[in-house]
Amino acid sequence: MKVHLTRRYHFAASHRLHLTDCSDDENRAIYGKCNNPHGHGHNYSVEVTVSGPVDAATGMVCNLADLDGFSNKEIIERFDHTNLSMMPLFEGKVPTTERLCVEIYDIYNKGFKHAHLEKVRIEETAKNSFEYTG
Amino acid sequence: MKVHLTRRYHFAASHRLHLTDCSDDENRAIYGKCNNPHGHGHNYSVEVTVSGPVDAATGMVCNLADLDGFSNKEIIERFDHTNLSMMPLFEGKVPTTERLCVEIYDIYNKGFKHAHLEKVRIEETAKNSFEYTG
Amino acid sequence: MKVHLTRRYHFAASHRLHLTDCSDDENRAIYGKCNNPHGHGHNYSVEVTVSGPVDAATGMVCNLADLDGFSNKEIIERFDHTNLSMMPLFEGKVPTTERLCVEIYDIYNKGFKHAHLEKVRIEETAKNSFEYTG
Amino acid sequence: MKVHLTRRYHFAASHRLHLTDCSDDENRAIYGKCNNPHGHGHNYSVEVTVSGPVDAATGMVCNLADLDGFSNKEIIERFDHTNLSMMPLFEGKVPTTERLCVEIYDIYNKGFKHAHLEKVRIEETAKNSFEYTG
Amino acid sequence: MKVHLTRRYHFAASHRLHLTDCSDDENRAIYGKCNNPHGHGHNYSVEVTVSGPVDAATGMVCNLADLDGFSNKEIIERFDHTNLSMMPLFEGKVPTTERLCVEIYDIYNKGFKHAHLEKVRIEETAKNSFEYTG
Amino acid sequence: MKVHLTRRYHFAASHRLHLTDCSDDENRAIYGKCNNPHGHGHNYSVEVTVSGPVDAATGMVCNLADLDGFSNKEIIERFDHTNLSMMPLFEGKVPTTERLCVEIYDIYNKGFKHAHLEKVRIEETAKNSFEYTG
Repeated sequence: MKVHLTRRYHFAASHRLHLTDCSDDENRAIYGKCNNPHGHGHNYSVEVTVSGPVDAATGMVCNLADLDGFSNKEIIERFDHTNLSMMPLFEGKVPTTERLCVEIYDIYNKGFKHAHLEKVRIEETAKNSFEYTG
Repeated sequence: MKVHLTRRYHFAASHRLHLTDCSDDENRAIYGKCNNPHGHGHNYSVEVTVSGPVDAATGMVCNLADLDGFSNKEIIERFDHTNLSMMPLFEGKVPTTERLCVEIYDIYNKGFKHAHLEKVRIEETAKNSFEYTG
Repeated sequence: MKVHLTRRYHFAASHRLHLTDCSDDENRAIYGKCNNPHGHGHNYSVEVTVSGPVDAATGMVCNLADLDGFSNKEIIERFDHTNLSMMPLFEGKVPTTERLCVEIYDIYNKGFKHAHLEKVRIEETAKNSFEYTG
Repeated sequence: MKVHLTRRYHFAASHRLHLTDCSDDENRAIYGKCNNPHGHGHNYSVEVTVSGPVDAATGMVCNLADLDGFSNKEIIERFDHTNLSMMPLFEGKVPTTERLCVEIYDIYNKGFKHAHLEKVRIEETAKNSFEYTG
Repeated sequence: MKVHLTRRYHFAASHRLHLTDCSDDENRAIYGKCNNPHGHGHNYSVEVTVSGPVDAATGMVCNLADLDGFSNKEIIERFDHTNLSMMPLFEGKVPTTERLCVEIYDIYNKGFKHAHLEKVRIEETAKNSFEYTG
Repeated sequence: MKVHLTRRYHFAASHRLHLTDCSDDENRAIYGKCNNPHGHGHNYSVEVTVSGPVDAATGMVCNLADLDGFSNKEIIERFDHTNLSMMPLFEGKVPTTERLCVEIYDIYNKGFKHAHLEKVRIEETAKNSFEYTG
């Protein structure tokens, strides 16, 4: 009796999509207005999905307090109100939401042990979202 | 040519997460404020996903009138404006949304014969959702 | 240069709409399924609107930290994961969302001094909302 | 390191669900109010999901400019502000959203070559959605 | 102690914006793609706001059962799954959402007597809405 | 017969809330994490409300093509994918959303002549919004 639990968190951050090896024209051709100087930003919504059997006593897949504790410490405190382009995590790499999604998946995958990690999904805007399942 | 159809229903209910075998302190440790005396409640959103071939004549996976008829009778009339903790269905079991999800899946699985059941997903709040695929 | 600021908070609670002076039939006639025994619940969304001039230095109507501090202490801690029908605040009164709206307005009106209170709006479900402007 | 990217587009259209081979009563029995004469309409929301490895240089699954260019030309210009029942695409076929979903999947599948097509999902109303994965 | 109550209803309809007195080019210049032949459609969301004192006994502005009864009979049954351009109500008039809003306001204003009518707001799409206050 | 029309636009931008005259500690005390170095960002949603009589011929308050043309040129092209803190518009001023709201109101007020400007509302996040009515 395996159930999936999805929990949603929010943070706001900025980034600039820019390849230091490319010319301004090349960057503009690849990233369009996402390459604008000084960056821009988004309200990111992170949905983490974990799964597991429903505990016979508690009736839960995992305790939301554990998931919230981990997520607030490892995700929200780390990414909220930051400039992703300035984070060591993305040094030498363009902080696209594809990569952010993989990085956040890896953080849960290494550190969260209370249920099986299934998926991380990030909404960058109301029109765009990204998913990574490992 | 198998298509998935997802239909969303809404009901409001209350529950209290509480294990009668545990002390007040233990219950508080497990369920936090969800263990508050007298219960609390939610607007639950149920999404049922069914699948099947697209009928060559009607162009439909299944008739929404059939799905609505079943869902209103078996789900909405049964759960809407109730206290889940008082339902015979959850006697001796804590009515977590994990369990509610499994129970509602089982109701569709046993009774709804117009298309193949794929999944039941319940949103408990804007931050939490649960899925069961059998 | 007066600007309005609206901030949204969420809590989950249960209630039962029931007049002790009326018969079961009368209660059923007035409140329908909201009169169901044992109560039911909702995810309430509270939007508080305050106004004021934009501070020439900070550029703010009021500091969100002040509004959040007040709201968490006076609204969320008080109402979240409770049964409204059991609160002393509603003793002898049916805890409709109309009344909840007026009570929450009064709490801000008496206690929040960092900006002018304009309005409290409560969404009870995706279909219902209530507003009180004093 | 395969990531899924989902992009959402919107269009408004009308249709009438009606089988020319059936009597009025039969049509009414099958399609209910969706068979009303003169048709009715919806705001359709199309979500297309594509997948692929994250490009080592750009950090992207595919360039959104390519996906937007294709989608605007092949989907939005074609379906927005139309009457689906009058389109040659649905000649002799009832334009249910199941069929619309399959047709839009096929358009991406034949023409969009910048990433692997995973899924097309269409929301017809806030209560109904359809998915096709090929 | 006057409280505002807002209730949301949904219907789907089609229309075509077209002036019979104007040439095709003029119609195209005024209405753009909303003038496309055969029409198009929307999911309309109607929000009606009424106000009144909170009844000392029931705690309500007005009974939702009365508001729902009226709205289902006079609004939903009348407009849901119709082609607005074919309704006698709009004979000789282009059925813009501005006019639909005024017509729906007038229906409540003439017929709904259980609370004071404040406003009718219609969302035509996620980007457009219209309000009329009499 | 005056109707209000509200139209919603979206842009993404970054900003940092920081007073150059204040110490780091003072800035931190006033703006909290919004003062984080390198800035952060949001998906801003702008709702502009205009009003006017319904034109007897066209049935419209104003032509959406005019409103979209103005808004895309004067608002979206100007603010989308920018860092508000680097704009000349906010030189020497902290680009709070209160101020952004007033500036955008002023742009419509000076330049948009097709209907009466009523209000500009900006959603900064799902929890915060600001309104200015001049």
